[in-house]
Amino acid sequence: MIIRFKSIGIIYTPFQKKEGMPIQPAGAIGMKGSIRLKKKYIRGLSDLDGFSHIYLIYHLHKSKGFNMEVIPFLDDKPHGVFATRAPRRPNNIGISIVKLVSIHKNVLEIENVDILNGTPLLDIKPYIPEFDIHEIENTGWAKDISEKVKQMKADKRFT
Amino acid sequence: MIIRFKSIGIIYTPFQKKEGMPIQPAGAIGMKGSIRLKKKYIRGLSDLDGFSHIYLIYHLHKSKGFNMEVIPFLDDKPHGVFATRAPRRPNNIGISIVKLVSIHKNVLEIENVDILNGTPLLDIKPYIPEFDIHEIENTGWAKDISEKVKQMKADKRFT
Repeated sequence: MIIRFKSIGIIYTPFQKKEGMPIQPAGAIGMKGSIRLKKKYIRGLSDLDGFSHIYLIYHLHKSKGFNMEVIPFLDDKPHGVFATRAPRRPNNIGISIVKLVSIHKNVLEIENVDILNGTPLLDIKPYIPEFDIHEIENTGWAKDISEKVKQMKADKRFT
Repeated sequence: MIIRFKSIGIIYTPFQKKEGMPIQPAGAIGMKGSIRLKKKYIRGLSDLDGFSHIYLIYHLHKSKGFNMEVIPFLDDKPHGVFATRAPRRPNNIGISIVKLVSIHKNVLEIENVDILNGTPLLDIKPYIPEFDIHEIENTGWAKDISEKVKQMKADKRFT
């Protein structure tokens, strides 16, 4: 069964190609971007400006095909694709939590963007701590990258 | 432009109809479900069992159409659909963070499930605190529901 979605707008960022992009929002702190929503959806944005953070769900439109196991950027061992956030996936859907700076009509200014320029947007959802922050017991292979990610934050290379 | 995805498996839960379902994971603590992944994707699960929490991205297959503004379950005022987690959306994509209990071959046992039985699964991603936990300044209209959600947790009606 084929499931069909359509772009509700386009995400604009400084990243013209995949090479050199930050690895996740932790490497993209302060990185600015914008969303140009299709004008017919403007009313759907009402009261979104009250939220400081939003989920973007988007089509990883430049990712073609996938491997069942991949070596993530921050590790040197292969893991199942579903145990990673790699962009090449059976369904090339990306999610990012970004900071919402402002909304003017159909244009949203955002920060902490780790998304390729020109990416088709599928959905926006508010980030709500009671729903989205969880006490985690285990983070598998990502346990060791935790320290690396923190160091990347401290680095501030993109701020 | 039409974007095409396909189901990678099916989510099984105790919820046969939308009425009476818990409102978000906060109301579904301990609620058990399972995922039956298509067998061809089994290798994609390797090392996922190290993670205690995962994102499920799925097709809200029973949601047809949408309104530009909706009154969420936990509020009495209308808000733009993108400022809510309502299931009827321009693209009916759902995300839930659930607890991963076990994986046996292509079957994943999960907990804290707020998803309709028979839902087509689109993607699984590991929940990684460094990527997914954010310090939030504002949660707009959801500020007042925070207390309600906490009370629902304390209620433990589903545990």
